Amino acid sequence: MIRFKDEADFAAALDDLPLPDPAAQAAARDRQAELTKPLGALGRLEDIAIFLAGWQGTDRPHADRVKAALFAGNHGVAARGVSAFPAAVTAQMVDNFRAGGAAINALSRACGAELSIMALDLDRPTGDIASEAAMTQADCLVALNAGAAVVTDDIDLLLVGEMGIGNTTPAAALCAQSFGGDAADWCGRGTGVDDDGIARKIGAVASALALHGPLCKSPFEMLRRLGGREIAAMAGAILAARMLRIPVLLDGFICCAAIAPLVAAQPAFLDHCLAAHCSAEGGHMRLLGSFGLEPLLRLDMRLGEGSGAAVAVHLVRAAVAAHNEMATFAEAAVSREQTTVKLL
Amino acid sequence: MIRFKDEADFAAALDDLPLPDPAAQAAARDRQAELTKPLGALGRLEDIAIFLAGWQGTDRPHADRVKAALFAGNHGVAARGVSAFPAAVTAQMVDNFRAGGAAINALSRACGAELSIMALDLDRPTGDIASEAAMTQADCLVALNAGAAVVTDDIDLLLVGEMGIGNTTPAAALCAQSFGGDAADWCGRGTGVDDDGIARKIGAVASALALHGPLCKSPFEMLRRLGGREIAAMAGAILAARMLRIPVLLDGFICCAAIAPLVAAQPAFLDHCLAAHCSAEGGHMRLLGSFGLEPLLRLDMRLGEGSGAAVAVHLVRAAVAAHNEMATFAEAAVSREQTTVKLL
Repeated sequence: MIRFKDEADFAAALDDLPLPDPAAQAAARDRQAELTKPLGALGRLEDIAIFLAGWQGTDRPHADRVKAALFAGNHGVAARGVSAFPAAVTAQMVDNFRAGGAAINALSRACGAELSIMALDLDRPTGDIASEAAMTQADCLVALNAGAAVVTDDIDLLLVGEMGIGNTTPAAALCAQSFGGDAADWCGRGTGVDDDGIARKIGAVASALALHGPLCKSPFEMLRRLGGREIAAMAGAILAARMLRIPVLLDGFICCAAIAPLVAAQPAFLDHCLAAHCSAEGGHMRLLGSFGLEPLLRLDMRLGEGSGAAVAVHLVRAAVAAHNEMATFAEAAVSREQTTVKLL
Repeated sequence: MIRFKDEADFAAALDDLPLPDPAAQAAARDRQAELTKPLGALGRLEDIAIFLAGWQGTDRPHADRVKAALFAGNHGVAARGVSAFPAAVTAQMVDNFRAGGAAINALSRACGAELSIMALDLDRPTGDIASEAAMTQADCLVALNAGAAVVTDDIDLLLVGEMGIGNTTPAAALCAQSFGGDAADWCGRGTGVDDDGIARKIGAVASALALHGPLCKSPFEMLRRLGGREIAAMAGAILAARMLRIPVLLDGFICCAAIAPLVAAQPAFLDHCLAAHCSAEGGHMRLLGSFGLEPLLRLDMRLGEGSGAAVAVHLVRAAVAAHNEMATFAEAAVSREQTTVKLL
């Protein structure tokens, strides 16, 4: 299990990212060319199989053991009225997750993922980022390690999700700090806030950027000052997955924003990640553009919880099934393309 | 089981299409508004659940019994060198389907669909559409009924697929005849034909349109003159599904082209259909535009066989799982949106 000892240890991990196995990737690519279909005819399913092969170090990748890691946190900035829902909903939804009644419960059951639910100090909201740092260094390290702790090396595929009333506000701040742009460029309606709420949100993000921007010297400092506990936990989980060569399905805006500081510092950080979907939250499309990732799904989902990633698990499973189970041209005695054509 | 007695019976069925149950749709829509998520936050998954509810006549739709109906046929026009593969591959691939080694075998297993494989007179290719009608009236009726025969009323969801070397050529002809445009507008590379092959394909489609166009007075005549056995079978299956109120996941270019004549005559024919994906074959995007359908998936697949629809089955299942299994706000004691915001 991965555990970051301190900020320097986290930074060192980000500077020493493992790479996929090129031989396994090449072998998987060769296999795709032998399967009974025109080369490339399964489109992105072929790419997914080759991607998994590289990270799993085998030409026959698998997606049997899928873990959905869900993190919840509360945010001081929620008191500014940046969300359509009251902050109490975070804890209510955690109860709903534990009782099995939320979307992620249904969707992770549907895709056969093991759901882990971690509520992070909900009764102790982070500092209001518009006027102070979200977390102390110690609290941020605890949150990063809470995320890393759910990533065990027996997982074939990880997806991370979140719940936290108000958390599109720190997410917007992290995006702007990581990739530039104004506060307004990254602020959307989240769960459905009204125009006044958006104005308050933009104001909070702008204040946070003015206050903390000059002090955001590292990904750790960005997560600590502008993030939140569930956000840092997702970043810790996704980095831990990389260290263990476990591929990750990214979910929506907040999940992606959690790693924006890591990606800005190390673009290769994304190499073990697939963008599961593009959320209807406008900042997400912009962020995927900054990441240079093409989402697998565009279903206008905007729920968080890992819900989009849970749907995309099925695509990964389909890719693996086709890759491993199809016959080759030789096995099935199917002719390849004709090289010459006899005209009538 | 549906059986079309003659051409007039087929035409009558197309003129008397059943509609979805508005009460079931409304009840499903009401339920979506009560589930523990912001309204609309599951995006198209919500729409899919409501769509299924209307066709299945229940506010709790299901997608347990999924049938994948695969039809194969051979085409006289293939002798003109319009495909990258020799015509013998159709029968070889049918053997591969029966042995379980093709993409649709792996993908239908992965989505839990029952796969039915029907080879339609492979040793008797249809007439070359560039110089004669593809089928006699009797042969066309047999093919339509072969498709209708696989649709039993115990199916929750149907998907149809095809295999037939050369069949993007009749598909292009059906699209042009149904929705206008030149032969070149609808002719792509199919399984990977080269530039010369595309030129031959465009020529064949143009000849077919010139020869048969003035005589294509009905959807039946269009299928008979310009189509093929597996194409007519798909049209028969999708119409039979409508008569039994069974929702259908459309696959790629050829599957959609099979119903193009029906849609051009009766745009409401599409009401029981979802576009599973958009193929990399250029004509498919154009045809989905003519249909006014937004595909669920864009994965650059271009295989046929029902492969894209089989992947989309998972999205339907996910939609149903969320719709049926999620708790309501009342059940989970989760607060709804706040109506007023207290500012700091």
